[in-house]
Amino acid sequence: MIIFIDMDEVIADAYEAFITNYNADFNEQLTIEDFKGAEAWEIIPQERKKQMRKYLYTDGFFRSFKPIEGSQKALEQLCQNHEVYIASAAMEFPNSLREKSDWLDEYFPFIHWKNRILCGNKFILDGDLLIDDRAYNLKAFKGHSLLFTSPHNINENGFPRANTWEEALAFVDSIS
Amino acid sequence: MIIFIDMDEVIADAYEAFITNYNADFNEQLTIEDFKGAEAWEIIPQERKKQMRKYLYTDGFFRSFKPIEGSQKALEQLCQNHEVYIASAAMEFPNSLREKSDWLDEYFPFIHWKNRILCGNKFILDGDLLIDDRAYNLKAFKGHSLLFTSPHNINENGFPRANTWEEALAFVDSIS
Repeated sequence: MIIFIDMDEVIADAYEAFITNYNADFNEQLTIEDFKGAEAWEIIPQERKKQMRKYLYTDGFFRSFKPIEGSQKALEQLCQNHEVYIASAAMEFPNSLREKSDWLDEYFPFIHWKNRILCGNKFILDGDLLIDDRAYNLKAFKGHSLLFTSPHNINENGFPRANTWEEALAFVDSIS
Repeated sequence: MIIFIDMDEVIADAYEAFITNYNADFNEQLTIEDFKGAEAWEIIPQERKKQMRKYLYTDGFFRSFKPIEGSQKALEQLCQNHEVYIASAAMEFPNSLREKSDWLDEYFPFIHWKNRILCGNKFILDGDLLIDDRAYNLKAFKGHSLLFTSPHNINENGFPRANTWEEALAFVDSIS
């Protein structure tokens, strides 16, 4: 199968980096639990949103993400039997492009540059499965869809779901 | 129609930038005519290939390309009736990613970030037409193909060809 895998919140832990920066800047003690069931920008007080947005344009922010637990091992395993592509809607943040490429070099060096896609809309991708944390990406994709659990999507019911990379591997097996 | 359009040698003039740098570095008088019918690296003397390769990793090289004649007007026109995407196999050169995004902002600001794709393999793109200067990209694409003439591909006979953006527009009309 041709499998497309999103970056942020699927293999790259964006929330952890955001919360670490936010807590340091505002002397807060937020945890991932505080972000469940809503978008981050809906939870943050209005007067702090500008600062929050700033992180996305700060050099090194995207590069600082840690890999999501189990993602490296899982993708290595998937690569043995499938054509695995990374597909990130990174074009919105031009500063993130190089950082995302470097990040993949560090944590997913086995994903060849030919198998890396930085894009916008994902419905132009032609393959068998998209693993993503955003329902709007999955909705428009023509192949199988798998929603990877992230705090913001816990109330989304329209797609098969994986809470962990172990569950994602089991889903891939089930449709292979 | 969904139309994918390559960057280098289709809307961005890579040869001009290369020849300008090369002539300055080696006190040569090469012109575009010297590159017809072969890859650039087949024409350059062995001992200069390292320097030639260096251009690709030099900051500002990709940003310095001029738009291919007629490309801006043609794409603006195409956007009126079609979904136009830029699709560049840029992931090979991580230093080019930001420059290509900035270059599009300058010369093709009407192409939204959601319609920009920096990738490797192009056969994962799902659409109606790919306009590209590389036969290997066109060969693997499932929709219509249009070879945009570049010095290196003048002997390629396997695809419909456009020598200019005027011809490309006429081809699009013919299959619409």
